[in-house]
Amino acid sequence: MADISTLGEFGLIDHLTNDLKLENDSTVKGVGDDAAILDYTKKNTRVLVTTDLLLEGIHFDLTYTPLKHLGYKAAMVNFSDIYAMNGKPKQITVSLGVSGKFQTEDLEELYAGIKLACERHTVDLVGGDTSASATGLTISITCIGEGIEGKIVCRNTAQPNDLICVSGNLGAAYMGLQLLEREKRVFEKGGEEGMQPDFAGKEYLLERQLKPEARKDIIETLDKAGIVPTAMMDISDGLSSELLHICKQSGVGCRIYEEKIPVDYQTAIQAEEFNMNLMTVALNGGEDYELLFTVPVSMHEKVNELKGIKVIGYTTSDPNERVLVTPEGPEMTLKAQGWTGF
Amino acid sequence: MADISTLGEFGLIDHLTNDLKLENDSTVKGVGDDAAILDYTKKNTRVLVTTDLLLEGIHFDLTYTPLKHLGYKAAMVNFSDIYAMNGKPKQITVSLGVSGKFQTEDLEELYAGIKLACERHTVDLVGGDTSASATGLTISITCIGEGIEGKIVCRNTAQPNDLICVSGNLGAAYMGLQLLEREKRVFEKGGEEGMQPDFAGKEYLLERQLKPEARKDIIETLDKAGIVPTAMMDISDGLSSELLHICKQSGVGCRIYEEKIPVDYQTAIQAEEFNMNLMTVALNGGEDYELLFTVPVSMHEKVNELKGIKVIGYTTSDPNERVLVTPEGPEMTLKAQGWTGF
Repeated sequence: MADISTLGEFGLIDHLTNDLKLENDSTVKGVGDDAAILDYTKKNTRVLVTTDLLLEGIHFDLTYTPLKHLGYKAAMVNFSDIYAMNGKPKQITVSLGVSGKFQTEDLEELYAGIKLACERHTVDLVGGDTSASATGLTISITCIGEGIEGKIVCRNTAQPNDLICVSGNLGAAYMGLQLLEREKRVFEKGGEEGMQPDFAGKEYLLERQLKPEARKDIIETLDKAGIVPTAMMDISDGLSSELLHICKQSGVGCRIYEEKIPVDYQTAIQAEEFNMNLMTVALNGGEDYELLFTVPVSMHEKVNELKGIKVIGYTTSDPNERVLVTPEGPEMTLKAQGWTGF
Repeated sequence: MADISTLGEFGLIDHLTNDLKLENDSTVKGVGDDAAILDYTKKNTRVLVTTDLLLEGIHFDLTYTPLKHLGYKAAMVNFSDIYAMNGKPKQITVSLGVSGKFQTEDLEELYAGIKLACERHTVDLVGGDTSASATGLTISITCIGEGIEGKIVCRNTAQPNDLICVSGNLGAAYMGLQLLEREKRVFEKGGEEGMQPDFAGKEYLLERQLKPEARKDIIETLDKAGIVPTAMMDISDGLSSELLHICKQSGVGCRIYEEKIPVDYQTAIQAEEFNMNLMTVALNGGEDYELLFTVPVSMHEKVNELKGIKVIGYTTSDPNERVLVTPEGPEMTLKAQGWTGF
């Protein structure tokens, strides 16, 4: 294993980025100068910028997170923010703070994950820096994307009586996290020698937690169908929390139906095994990186025909209405219990 | 003092950013959505992107760094990277990782410094996030700037026989750091009760370390004089290190003259007091954030007339030539001893 200090900062960045190819027309110059140079002069184009800071021990646990997966996910959560604006991610910068416990090979793994994510979403890695850290691993990624004027979708533009839609299914990433946390506790208590965690049949939940996919496909599906959502965001902190953001910022209320909220059967099985309330998991479990959006009610039939998208309720004109309708009848008040980072 | 957790992440960001006004035409939408929206469609405009990660205990020491100064400096070092491309900083995003030892008021101080820097350089704060950290303070800033095609200056475009120029003076920030480190050691050894550090007459050195100014004025001066440097970068790791970057990337050599390297008299006095070699300080001391650039030799008279800019030598066609000429005659080989972060 190669010690990082033998390469030095510039040697390390060279080493990690020397095989990069630039894929996007908007990338004029990438890694290697004081700043990257981009061209966003194309007519009606807008630059979208989002940034995420991931800290070891807070946002990820290296006990059960392979570095390649971590790199992949770190890039993906940023892409997700750009898709959530109805844009396309085009460039990222990656800054790392790395403590002495990491070797060059570890950073190669991390970068391999970042590069794989970039490749799959045709994003160019254009800059960043790497420095020592006193403790653990710090990853800061900034993503720059392209939006088209008039088609960029914000959070504050939902209208009363819009349909509320979500992509994919919810709660799976959270159940994956619970599984990993349980195995970590078993491991730390020191189970039998050589005991391996039993994840058979639970691969989907683990993948949702460790290797989420930003929903580029949904953005493309909506575009092909000629649908521009009235408001949109990605679900990183849980459906309840995100929906209340849209409502608050748009000045509308909402009514959603418990039975309409999409849940994978593996999520349901795992929730039962853990004796957890499935709806709490689906409403408040974070990190699914699905898209939550609103469309005019006139789009009802069109949206219903689209694969992977479900209508779960509608917005109302009363900003104080925040209702979850349960199959048994009683109406509950939606609350944001998502993880807020403090 | 208010505990940060009482506000939560979103409350905290709201609290810290609710008084922001957007000043630049290119800023369409700032804080508050999945991504900021920028407009860089103006003809011949290019987007410049740079990012910096600052970690407590590595890049700054809160024992002697006031949080407001830290915020100011964190923004300023990013602006400096954009000026070093001959561009203008326009937007920044700020991500913070904050451990339990910090109160809301501490972050207000940090943000006050960031905002002051933004105000002075007409930069809009357009996004970022704030989360808990297991240890200490992490600051990640990304700066987006505007460059004009044909006027953007990179590091790899110096030509043989160009003049090598620097702005301001060198080594002062490093001497400021030495002063602060000395007082810290005195303090930690437990000097007399109530003893105050004696910084009288040394304010300039401290300011250079704690509150550096990105050289917007130099970029404007060059522009007014009709000078576009052939290559440029800012001096964050020391003159030697940066000059060798330009030479390596441009495939040229260099000859610089010790007696031409600009040093403030306070730096000289302090170096003598600390029994340090002044030239080592000026060549290798980092964090001055002055500009290092090359111009065609035909610009000699023009450059000589400009205040605050000094010609210190010239580039040569031999990429292996890296000479420092001393007044006594002997030629030394320039070496990069700048701090590399590992």
